[in-house]
Amino acid sequence: MAIILGDNRYGKAENRIVRIFRDQPRHEIRDLNVSTALRGDFAAAHLVGDQANVLPTDTQKQTAYAFAKQKSLETIEAYGLELARHFVEDVAPVTGARVEIEEYAWERVLVDGVEDDHTWVRRGQEVRIASITIEGSGDDRRTWVTGGLKDLVILKSTGSEFHGFLVDPYTVLEPTTDRIMATSLVARWRFAHADVDWDPVYAGIRKLLVERYATVQSLALQQTLYEMGRAVLEAYDEVAEVRLSAPNKHHFRYDLAPFGIENQGEVFHVDDRPYGLIQATVLRDDAADAGPAWDAYTGLV
Amino acid sequence: MAIILGDNRYGKAENRIVRIFRDQPRHEIRDLNVSTALRGDFAAAHLVGDQANVLPTDTQKQTAYAFAKQKSLETIEAYGLELARHFVEDVAPVTGARVEIEEYAWERVLVDGVEDDHTWVRRGQEVRIASITIEGSGDDRRTWVTGGLKDLVILKSTGSEFHGFLVDPYTVLEPTTDRIMATSLVARWRFAHADVDWDPVYAGIRKLLVERYATVQSLALQQTLYEMGRAVLEAYDEVAEVRLSAPNKHHFRYDLAPFGIENQGEVFHVDDRPYGLIQATVLRDDAADAGPAWDAYTGLV
Amino acid sequence: MAIILGDNRYGKAENRIVRIFRDQPRHEIRDLNVSTALRGDFAAAHLVGDQANVLPTDTQKQTAYAFAKQKSLETIEAYGLELARHFVEDVAPVTGARVEIEEYAWERVLVDGVEDDHTWVRRGQEVRIASITIEGSGDDRRTWVTGGLKDLVILKSTGSEFHGFLVDPYTVLEPTTDRIMATSLVARWRFAHADVDWDPVYAGIRKLLVERYATVQSLALQQTLYEMGRAVLEAYDEVAEVRLSAPNKHHFRYDLAPFGIENQGEVFHVDDRPYGLIQATVLRDDAADAGPAWDAYTGLV
Amino acid sequence: MAIILGDNRYGKAENRIVRIFRDQPRHEIRDLNVSTALRGDFAAAHLVGDQANVLPTDTQKQTAYAFAKQKSLETIEAYGLELARHFVEDVAPVTGARVEIEEYAWERVLVDGVEDDHTWVRRGQEVRIASITIEGSGDDRRTWVTGGLKDLVILKSTGSEFHGFLVDPYTVLEPTTDRIMATSLVARWRFAHADVDWDPVYAGIRKLLVERYATVQSLALQQTLYEMGRAVLEAYDEVAEVRLSAPNKHHFRYDLAPFGIENQGEVFHVDDRPYGLIQATVLRDDAADAGPAWDAYTGLV
Repeated sequence: MAIILGDNRYGKAENRIVRIFRDQPRHEIRDLNVSTALRGDFAAAHLVGDQANVLPTDTQKQTAYAFAKQKSLETIEAYGLELARHFVEDVAPVTGARVEIEEYAWERVLVDGVEDDHTWVRRGQEVRIASITIEGSGDDRRTWVTGGLKDLVILKSTGSEFHGFLVDPYTVLEPTTDRIMATSLVARWRFAHADVDWDPVYAGIRKLLVERYATVQSLALQQTLYEMGRAVLEAYDEVAEVRLSAPNKHHFRYDLAPFGIENQGEVFHVDDRPYGLIQATVLRDDAADAGPAWDAYTGLV
Repeated sequence: MAIILGDNRYGKAENRIVRIFRDQPRHEIRDLNVSTALRGDFAAAHLVGDQANVLPTDTQKQTAYAFAKQKSLETIEAYGLELARHFVEDVAPVTGARVEIEEYAWERVLVDGVEDDHTWVRRGQEVRIASITIEGSGDDRRTWVTGGLKDLVILKSTGSEFHGFLVDPYTVLEPTTDRIMATSLVARWRFAHADVDWDPVYAGIRKLLVERYATVQSLALQQTLYEMGRAVLEAYDEVAEVRLSAPNKHHFRYDLAPFGIENQGEVFHVDDRPYGLIQATVLRDDAADAGPAWDAYTGLV
Repeated sequence: MAIILGDNRYGKAENRIVRIFRDQPRHEIRDLNVSTALRGDFAAAHLVGDQANVLPTDTQKQTAYAFAKQKSLETIEAYGLELARHFVEDVAPVTGARVEIEEYAWERVLVDGVEDDHTWVRRGQEVRIASITIEGSGDDRRTWVTGGLKDLVILKSTGSEFHGFLVDPYTVLEPTTDRIMATSLVARWRFAHADVDWDPVYAGIRKLLVERYATVQSLALQQTLYEMGRAVLEAYDEVAEVRLSAPNKHHFRYDLAPFGIENQGEVFHVDDRPYGLIQATVLRDDAADAGPAWDAYTGLV
Repeated sequence: MAIILGDNRYGKAENRIVRIFRDQPRHEIRDLNVSTALRGDFAAAHLVGDQANVLPTDTQKQTAYAFAKQKSLETIEAYGLELARHFVEDVAPVTGARVEIEEYAWERVLVDGVEDDHTWVRRGQEVRIASITIEGSGDDRRTWVTGGLKDLVILKSTGSEFHGFLVDPYTVLEPTTDRIMATSLVARWRFAHADVDWDPVYAGIRKLLVERYATVQSLALQQTLYEMGRAVLEAYDEVAEVRLSAPNKHHFRYDLAPFGIENQGEVFHVDDRPYGLIQATVLRDDAADAGPAWDAYTGLV
């Protein structure tokens, strides 16, 4: 029996990069949180502290900032692909790269009803996320891209039921045919390839997810999630798989009976913890193996 | 020399109340975080543990939820006034009440371009805040109301300078005539009275703050804040005083020169800490004394 | 009626300074979060953007780091006094300075039972805090120092009652003679002068607070807080006033009756929100006026 | 091509359970954050909203609280095993269960130098974590247990080097032979079986991790992590694999040269983001396959 080094990687997490495009009077902004990680021949660093193969995490940071100017930053997916390809193609000991990105959205402020050219407020809503994973270089190169969103807080005040569930000796929950259903959605989708029109696809998927949440008469959060994933797959051939993670943000009907007040689903207490947590995957039955696509590096994605 | 009990109060903080109005097919939602605190004759509780004068914090909670149905919840200011008045008028030992409220905004989702009747996504942007302070009951009753907002993250990519500042032996900062100026604004305004059309005034003040931030050619964040406060006071007679607190969320121009890349205000690193923190008050010279209006109870407002 | 500039100040918040003393083989560490704010003649900056009187916040940062080496950093109170004095004495337009500091504690790790010379783990418990406020220079200089702690999470599993309270129509709470009482304590004390042996006084006050929390048979959190404050004032002549803020971190006895399980104060649910929040001041009846001592700049203290 | 339901599970996350043992005058406390998730035959819930096989997340919560009294809660590992076994053995549609637990440590307060029987302060330091995964019931039952810790903030003020690294066109980092090395460690270990003396093993592993961090002259964080993992495997036969994730919490030497002040590793700025992030696995070459042991459900572990 011997003790050995197993899977390992290292990188620079949470580079907070803002890119301003100011070639035109009307500026544009991209606001990112970028993490990079490398896999490769780094055993000597672990076993004997030899750094000869180790590109410093500081260098990964410099590269991320430099590429924000040198390369396209039109979409996080395209930018992440540039970064990941660079590491595996241009840095000899590197055999795999993972780039994870969050993008924060901004909206232009209105001045007398007209959009300002260079002032924005942060749109708080959901954060757009992406991951790019590349393994191998040259002809052996394989690429996985996922897109997604997180922190999309969505609530419906009716159209949600929960009844007919399994009852065991520890079950005290009452069934209901009308409740608030709310979540802070994380949705991620794996692309079948990297030849995608990233921005329209993102906008379209977000629209579908929200619409299905609104319109499905929900018998369980599970059902809603499945319908959301299915709608995405039906509409976008370039998507092979959808993963959804949805905390059930409980809104408990507040008991006002002691005060002689009727409460027909009007006053709720929002509880922080515990929360139900539902996770589901919807995919094509012929989807290629996911490989390392879902293997998260940081808590970012 | 004796040891005495000084100022004291107690209450229930952070009641997370959601109110759904469902009388019409098109539901409405109000999403609040409510804190209440009482002052009064509570010395016996401190000195000898006698609770006879102490209305439990649990009762304050029940009241906050009950009033969400029994009383108007059209605006947080009106609702807070109801709550505060109740405590000082109806609970004998109570001589003063403070209610602090945060309101989270939601926007209706679109389904096929049409607003849904009962599904919303949380608008992440700024949080609307208010505080109501009442002291004395009956003819002696005095009332202070503040409105405000927090977490309004706003950024301008040009139109901000900083130069001509004081230089001492510890000064190494370079002057600049063009920088990003970004903040996460807290703005609070004290009303001269409580006879206010709360929602339109809130919307109008928010609009003014954002517009002034965008349009003032800023020689310093101080100047921008003053102009924002002044604009509010000029437009709204019912506002006596404006207080602004603005962390300078530093966006540092990233040094790309080592890589032969020009960076003309295009690539920035967003730093978390430390941050400049500028605080200013703008008021009418004949404004009544603020009394306890600004005396915060929780970190909510 | 005119619009005027009211109270204002500015500074650099949350400088994260670590100071290593390495003159001896056994290193020492001080880990601080330092915020500085200045008051003075800054009207021109607000009114017309003239920065001639404005010492940049960046300079305040440089000074805070420089003083970590140039001046004593034996205690946060002594270091804060040096910083605050410097700003009011050496920077002409400055008439007042506020320094707020958090200190994070570390403890040496043991290697084979022996304390290591230069490795520590962060002690998570309470954070030591201090504020120094100076107004006026030369003979007019006045100084206020507060010490304190925050995030001291303390719990007693018995010895706490709550009954005999005021009952109104919204009261449903049941009285109890035995409950868990838990809080995340913030305690701050105002010194009567600045000629104090800071470290032993801090240690002694912390010890008293904890002991009184443990030993007082509590009829209400109010009573416990008062006894804690009184104990500090009785023991330390240099303390003029104690302020305590204690969220009641509710531990609700979990209802196991549906499962035929007795629960005699053994299984609890810890709730996040809402929470009771009790605040009390205990002081000497001849304490000098607090002036600006309690006027917080950041959320740090 | 068809759209299908893939991997899915659901449960109740973050049950905040406190257990007081009060059979003796000297009480004991266990403070937990428990999450449970189930896998099984839940396709009907997703596909058609049929809940007949779905044990509500509320029931999982009730069970977690009930077991805190009914079953042993001596260690989180033993308690988690009871919970997971119950779900797979006693709830027919359930084929797999995952339990993730955080435990917060408390230490007794001293009163006049003597440990109090029923008052504690929370030890802030590291959080102990565990996960239990069971698949199959009866003879087919397989069990995986991991232990671990997180949030162990550890720093050494010397004994850390970083030089000899790979240099590419984006490398500007200077090598160093003496720096601060600090991290907030996450360490998790997979047990070879479930017949373990949980508490002593936890204490022993924590001790080894800390000692190795202190004593290894570090040529890279990678090397330190490997040595930490190796020490655990050498000492504990019951551990098959160790995983370590270590953010490099950068302490940058502050440039005091502009002020004529020497800074020989004495004054540092602690930066929040970005941070290096190093992840390594150390294992026995004959370790059984990890199966689902590392497949996290929540952010807890």
